[in-house]
Amino acid sequence: MYEFDLVIRGGTVVTAADTVRAEVGIRAGRIVSVGEKLGAGAKEIDASGLLVMPGGIDSHVHLAQPSSGGPKMADGFESGTRSAIAGGNTTVLPFALQPRGAGLRASVMEYHREADGNALADYGFHLIISDPTPSVLGQELPSLVDEGYSSFKVFMTYDDLVLTDRQLLEVFESARTCGALVMVHCEGYDAIRFMTERLERAGKTAPYYHGVSRPQSVEREATHRAISHAELTDVPIMVVHVSGREPMEQVRWAQHKGLRILAETCTQYVALTADDLKGLNMDDSGGKYVCSPPPRDKDSWEAIWEGIRTGVFQTFSSDHCPYYFEGSEGKNSDKARTSFRWVPNGIPGVEVRMPILYSKGVVEGRITVNEFVALTSTNHARIYGLYPQKGSIAPGFDADIVLWDPNRKETIRQEIMHHGSDYTPYEGMTVTGWPVMTLLRGKVMMQDGRVTGEPGDGAFLRRGRSPYAIAQANCP
Amino acid sequence: MYEFDLVIRGGTVVTAADTVRAEVGIRAGRIVSVGEKLGAGAKEIDASGLLVMPGGIDSHVHLAQPSSGGPKMADGFESGTRSAIAGGNTTVLPFALQPRGAGLRASVMEYHREADGNALADYGFHLIISDPTPSVLGQELPSLVDEGYSSFKVFMTYDDLVLTDRQLLEVFESARTCGALVMVHCEGYDAIRFMTERLERAGKTAPYYHGVSRPQSVEREATHRAISHAELTDVPIMVVHVSGREPMEQVRWAQHKGLRILAETCTQYVALTADDLKGLNMDDSGGKYVCSPPPRDKDSWEAIWEGIRTGVFQTFSSDHCPYYFEGSEGKNSDKARTSFRWVPNGIPGVEVRMPILYSKGVVEGRITVNEFVALTSTNHARIYGLYPQKGSIAPGFDADIVLWDPNRKETIRQEIMHHGSDYTPYEGMTVTGWPVMTLLRGKVMMQDGRVTGEPGDGAFLRRGRSPYAIAQANCP
Amino acid sequence: MYEFDLVIRGGTVVTAADTVRAEVGIRAGRIVSVGEKLGAGAKEIDASGLLVMPGGIDSHVHLAQPSSGGPKMADGFESGTRSAIAGGNTTVLPFALQPRGAGLRASVMEYHREADGNALADYGFHLIISDPTPSVLGQELPSLVDEGYSSFKVFMTYDDLVLTDRQLLEVFESARTCGALVMVHCEGYDAIRFMTERLERAGKTAPYYHGVSRPQSVEREATHRAISHAELTDVPIMVVHVSGREPMEQVRWAQHKGLRILAETCTQYVALTADDLKGLNMDDSGGKYVCSPPPRDKDSWEAIWEGIRTGVFQTFSSDHCPYYFEGSEGKNSDKARTSFRWVPNGIPGVEVRMPILYSKGVVEGRITVNEFVALTSTNHARIYGLYPQKGSIAPGFDADIVLWDPNRKETIRQEIMHHGSDYTPYEGMTVTGWPVMTLLRGKVMMQDGRVTGEPGDGAFLRRGRSPYAIAQANCP
Amino acid sequence: MYEFDLVIRGGTVVTAADTVRAEVGIRAGRIVSVGEKLGAGAKEIDASGLLVMPGGIDSHVHLAQPSSGGPKMADGFESGTRSAIAGGNTTVLPFALQPRGAGLRASVMEYHREADGNALADYGFHLIISDPTPSVLGQELPSLVDEGYSSFKVFMTYDDLVLTDRQLLEVFESARTCGALVMVHCEGYDAIRFMTERLERAGKTAPYYHGVSRPQSVEREATHRAISHAELTDVPIMVVHVSGREPMEQVRWAQHKGLRILAETCTQYVALTADDLKGLNMDDSGGKYVCSPPPRDKDSWEAIWEGIRTGVFQTFSSDHCPYYFEGSEGKNSDKARTSFRWVPNGIPGVEVRMPILYSKGVVEGRITVNEFVALTSTNHARIYGLYPQKGSIAPGFDADIVLWDPNRKETIRQEIMHHGSDYTPYEGMTVTGWPVMTLLRGKVMMQDGRVTGEPGDGAFLRRGRSPYAIAQANCP
Repeated sequence: MYEFDLVIRGGTVVTAADTVRAEVGIRAGRIVSVGEKLGAGAKEIDASGLLVMPGGIDSHVHLAQPSSGGPKMADGFESGTRSAIAGGNTTVLPFALQPRGAGLRASVMEYHREADGNALADYGFHLIISDPTPSVLGQELPSLVDEGYSSFKVFMTYDDLVLTDRQLLEVFESARTCGALVMVHCEGYDAIRFMTERLERAGKTAPYYHGVSRPQSVEREATHRAISHAELTDVPIMVVHVSGREPMEQVRWAQHKGLRILAETCTQYVALTADDLKGLNMDDSGGKYVCSPPPRDKDSWEAIWEGIRTGVFQTFSSDHCPYYFEGSEGKNSDKARTSFRWVPNGIPGVEVRMPILYSKGVVEGRITVNEFVALTSTNHARIYGLYPQKGSIAPGFDADIVLWDPNRKETIRQEIMHHGSDYTPYEGMTVTGWPVMTLLRGKVMMQDGRVTGEPGDGAFLRRGRSPYAIAQANCP
Repeated sequence: MYEFDLVIRGGTVVTAADTVRAEVGIRAGRIVSVGEKLGAGAKEIDASGLLVMPGGIDSHVHLAQPSSGGPKMADGFESGTRSAIAGGNTTVLPFALQPRGAGLRASVMEYHREADGNALADYGFHLIISDPTPSVLGQELPSLVDEGYSSFKVFMTYDDLVLTDRQLLEVFESARTCGALVMVHCEGYDAIRFMTERLERAGKTAPYYHGVSRPQSVEREATHRAISHAELTDVPIMVVHVSGREPMEQVRWAQHKGLRILAETCTQYVALTADDLKGLNMDDSGGKYVCSPPPRDKDSWEAIWEGIRTGVFQTFSSDHCPYYFEGSEGKNSDKARTSFRWVPNGIPGVEVRMPILYSKGVVEGRITVNEFVALTSTNHARIYGLYPQKGSIAPGFDADIVLWDPNRKETIRQEIMHHGSDYTPYEGMTVTGWPVMTLLRGKVMMQDGRVTGEPGDGAFLRRGRSPYAIAQANCP
Repeated sequence: MYEFDLVIRGGTVVTAADTVRAEVGIRAGRIVSVGEKLGAGAKEIDASGLLVMPGGIDSHVHLAQPSSGGPKMADGFESGTRSAIAGGNTTVLPFALQPRGAGLRASVMEYHREADGNALADYGFHLIISDPTPSVLGQELPSLVDEGYSSFKVFMTYDDLVLTDRQLLEVFESARTCGALVMVHCEGYDAIRFMTERLERAGKTAPYYHGVSRPQSVEREATHRAISHAELTDVPIMVVHVSGREPMEQVRWAQHKGLRILAETCTQYVALTADDLKGLNMDDSGGKYVCSPPPRDKDSWEAIWEGIRTGVFQTFSSDHCPYYFEGSEGKNSDKARTSFRWVPNGIPGVEVRMPILYSKGVVEGRITVNEFVALTSTNHARIYGLYPQKGSIAPGFDADIVLWDPNRKETIRQEIMHHGSDYTPYEGMTVTGWPVMTLLRGKVMMQDGRVTGEPGDGAFLRRGRSPYAIAQANCP
Repeated sequence: MYEFDLVIRGGTVVTAADTVRAEVGIRAGRIVSVGEKLGAGAKEIDASGLLVMPGGIDSHVHLAQPSSGGPKMADGFESGTRSAIAGGNTTVLPFALQPRGAGLRASVMEYHREADGNALADYGFHLIISDPTPSVLGQELPSLVDEGYSSFKVFMTYDDLVLTDRQLLEVFESARTCGALVMVHCEGYDAIRFMTERLERAGKTAPYYHGVSRPQSVEREATHRAISHAELTDVPIMVVHVSGREPMEQVRWAQHKGLRILAETCTQYVALTADDLKGLNMDDSGGKYVCSPPPRDKDSWEAIWEGIRTGVFQTFSSDHCPYYFEGSEGKNSDKARTSFRWVPNGIPGVEVRMPILYSKGVVEGRITVNEFVALTSTNHARIYGLYPQKGSIAPGFDADIVLWDPNRKETIRQEIMHHGSDYTPYEGMTVTGWPVMTLLRGKVMMQDGRVTGEPGDGAFLRRGRSPYAIAQANCP
């Protein structure tokens, strides 16, 4: 008779606060003990030389998301969560997008059809509100928040998603009433359209001009605007995918003022630059790096690290949004080659988020390993209502664990990726530190790069309200 | 045979740079000599004990401006310019408002009909663009700029004036092409509407809530947005009527970044506060102080002085926008009493701008008398293309002169005002320093409070391009 | 046969990262297991309704420290550590002061004579360097750092402690070489002397003028200066007892620049103000609040909370420096009444640091309970080389634990204090949250306000180098 | 019978405020009329195509100043003021240095012996206080201020000049009492000594290391310290020769806080960089650029322009401090070649200050020609108590005038210089804009590069108190 279903021995357990040599005892998919010397397990794993960390939570991924009349995404839930698992993650939070004219609940149900039974990682859904009608805000949203869809995203750009300032204000107020957490994509629609048309008129259509069409000042302005709306409605917001110095400074300024502004940054903003969009001699391969906001420059890398180091950013995500490069729906399609405007907007990254942050952050001395855990897992759980089920290694948490080899050097290349895209924008980047085993609720899902989990192993997560939002909530 | 038509002797001549004991010789309406001892004049004025300063230029006044279906303004060109003259001004720059659907030129012509032959002060027109059609921007605007209407204002709020961000960007780009200077009213339309409706639903309709409906964060956000649009289109803008610390700090931040942002503040922002809008026990007399942006608080007074002192602001204007308090079109009409939303928006002030700034600025030691001249006259002339015809006392300038008694104490009260309104928001304020004579192109227009000029003495000014805007211009 | 010596059941375990319902198993004075349901312990403690937190570490206390010719301190090691234990602390870091002319090692030995066998809490020593001779910096310091005295403090003020800028630079450089962490008392000596003499000449000698003699600008200047010296020598420093907005902003500015500046604040800077030094009608009872830097104002309270919230401060200490109010060596002695200059400089506080921060911080919603643990324990351990022996609740850590009743209301008053002073400056303050049991390496030292530990229970801690300092170290 | 002794016709008169086509009438060495068309002059000058500007006032020059045991300065009053005149200046303000142990008055008398009868430009003296004894501060200083020596400089570095913080505070307080204006050389003595010794120990003795020994952080720290002392004593100060971004930002921060801090920058900080000190392959020719503070980098050029543009700086000076390059007392002497520490510290520049600022400032579009006049003349006169005798072109001012050819291109080279040094650090720099005639009180002192004035033409200026300082003054 074993005391535990599984015991992980010999490793160094890392949480957002602590780093200790300890054993982890797991029963029924949950961590039940952390101790110096635990009793026997039905199964035992030797983690000697490895870090035992909470499985990554990537709170910003896009899976199976349609664009209106747009290209097919390269990842559905199966391939997307397989890629996540391979990269050391155990939970992802994709989006359930409301198309205009549709209801929120119908959209959520549709995404469940895509996800349920197909996922290898646990998952919850953020909503995307593109059509904030009275019934959406007054009826659907409150009940969906109660049912575990406790956060939603709004957009300040994109033809089919952009909200007016008036809509943003109403949506923010509704979020406060319901205790939902608002995520905001901060880029200014009108400015981008203005620039895009100006560039196209000038014949500047190569992928590089995608970045030129939405410079930092455009993201900075929208960030300031979203913060001002949040101030007016007295509601906390999460500014997602902050890309550079100028928007970072807006967030910091607001935080210093005492406004409750959370912020996220992503892999690409410390690993890619605008120059990558030039491709080879301004050819179309620059399209591989087209995402929004676009990668900036080395000074912005420094600013992002400064923001990470001084607490401006709470989460580090991938904004995984995978498309193909080749093919009729790809970034290099005939249509996409006519203008950057038609290049599918997004890049894959869920699989390499943790290795790149570990390598550039921990190995290169910019953050501690505990900050790494906070940025990749614990803070995501706390902010999005998954804590204390997810996000740490302590009694009571799900046994979502990644075993991490801190010394392993790896070169990122498409052939070892598990995502659906036909390329990785990080091709050729070498990193130190790599996940060697991923456990989801105690089950080994990946070992040495081989995914051993099955579609359906991942379960839907009914999330609680965010503690950042709940203080304001006053739901009927 | 006299050497001069007029000689002013015995005074202290003050320019934006210098303060000297000197005589001023005038011929044919123009200053021709400034000297220690000039020859004889057909007429001579004794300015002993007085400051001899350039006549005030108030670059932000509203005269005879209709509101769509709204209240009648209390000043047309005759009473408005009489009030200006009485307050030591010699030039005003009111606005020629384009109603939606109309053309710019038609609007300009209409204002000329109001003004020509009726004005006691010289005048030019800023345009107001509310409907930036391609023909407005591509044809009317360039030719009107060439004809001396070299600046225009755009609004980020008001139902019948607000431009979208896209329109702002197109208008800014057109301004750059033509070398026109853009003035921007920075308050966010959607936020104000949102707040107004929320307040009205809560029954908070007293004049005081006018200020609550458009707090500093709303002005700050719009200021940041306008600056960002100016940055994107690489065009200088003038942020008008900055009311408090938060928008001031946005302007300063932009100036430090090297963006070419000019800024104006007004009398009410160092002389009134939000508390004035409470009236007596929250009664409707608070409507006397309703203007936009609304007066803020004492901390903002300090911020405005800080901005004046450190060069953030180039001009100090009145934003004279006079309405009646009593009567069916007044601030206390039956309709206005139903909600602050219907209180006519604006206050009179052209007559007291200079005394209030002199008293609070020069007498109380915050600015020098030379800075006073720069803020009330010279900088207006330079920025709006009137220099070197207007704005200083030196050979070649129009003989627009105010004789100023620096020691005279006066209590501002409605009975001594010359404006059309039936009240002054500054009632009872005591000041030190008062204009005792105003000369327009050598003619005595006001003496000891008695206006001696006639309607028609004031002439239209065909202005040159602003030196701030012209560098960018590339007119066909 | 028991699995554990002691098991704490029923409580909520709180670390700097996590809050979980869990049991804590202890063996041989160390935590060996944290689990949902642990085996039996020889002794068991019921912590139902209580928080189980790491014992407080107060890294800034003064015990048994002589002033040259000055007053006797009210606490030696026995009473001082008893007070610490009563307040939920398990480790204190007092100072071993080098008098000028003496060596470091001799001073350390003297403090060991005071401490060894007398302490109820574990303790280490920071050095105080007042006489940085070549042998002190070149020989004594490196070997003492190796032996566990891995941090030291220097003073920019006080007659018998102040170092010149040149000495500071040399000391900083030595710290870098040895991997010692430098703590800096930032107040400008010359400015304080200048002000003191000016005040005394004006007959302004009441305790209140202690604060006037060393305003924020004096602390701000010294903070800037210390930061600049740290920048020049490329060495991290800890700015201790930051008191208000102006020095806080200097620290933050430096952190944003990327300089490695740590900072501490203390109880008195969020709980007392300059007005307290007025006593009752400017009488001498104001002397009870005399400490340096002096308490500031409410705006500075806000600034300190802003700094805590945004990560400017890593540690929250007491700067416990206890004197008597009555008696010939007290703050109200005949000599002290002649001038604030002679009022013994310091206040007691080790016993109430945690309750006051918990109440004002956690209960009033300014920080989370996890941040409370970080600020009172974990960060002290990390920064001063006690981690992972001290500072968390996880396998391998010393069983230094405080059981905390989060709901208990208490009024701070002298009669319940255990310190040696005859007063507490926080008399009458009511708090919510109070320590109800303190365990040191598994031994119950305090229960329900009764100290059960014995002198000698506390052991000397040979500390490792600070991870913040060690990166620079290059010891021979 | 002529109306004027001299009339300048055909030019464009430029003041700090205005630019007008006008004639200038001069009688008895003073300007008596500025008019469109003046009567006849005994002498007339045709200024067609030229700017008629106030003669330059260089308020920061060193002439005939001994170093204790140090090198002989390359300019006495004759050659130094000849060079000034050749460069378009009419007034210089050198320093009368008090050696330690000597009195102020004795020092002043000594400088008068050097200057009186030898100068070609008008001159006043700033004092340098190196030994602030009670009699110096209490007796000599007040009476010298009354006699026209209304400003003095103190040093925070240099062996024989440095004051302690205590001394600075006492000196500042004395300045307030007397209404004297304090100029502060802000560099930290201890830090420079510390760095110098460290560099010398490492064999880094080339001139380049002069800059390394006193980086921006050292100047920034001293600037902050001086500002703090000024804040404590509530006295305005002038921070002289601000060299780069970091100290500029300190001054700006203080000005925004409302402290009365004036600031000066110099030619070398927009025209030279640290790289110039490398000489040719780190040879000793870098010594030609050794001055303190040392030139910084291109980013600091931008920061200095930002400070000029936004009003942080009021004056632009040369800090003319000329030494020889060759010879036994030169920058390339045997002794100087042993270490940068022995390289005479200072560079010549009075002759090229105006052309370099005009070319880089006005011609390159960074400032207006009126700002040029303010920065080179008017503000110097105002700040240092020479106004309204000097600093503008208006009735009553001395006829100190420079005729400026705005289009003339010139290459700066030693062969056209009039200074005593055997080199110019600006060798080979091409500029647009050059002085073609200098008049001192109506006398032509320079024409087309040929100096026509005589030693003794320059007179001593008994200055009034600075209006910036006088508000505080309360002299017995």
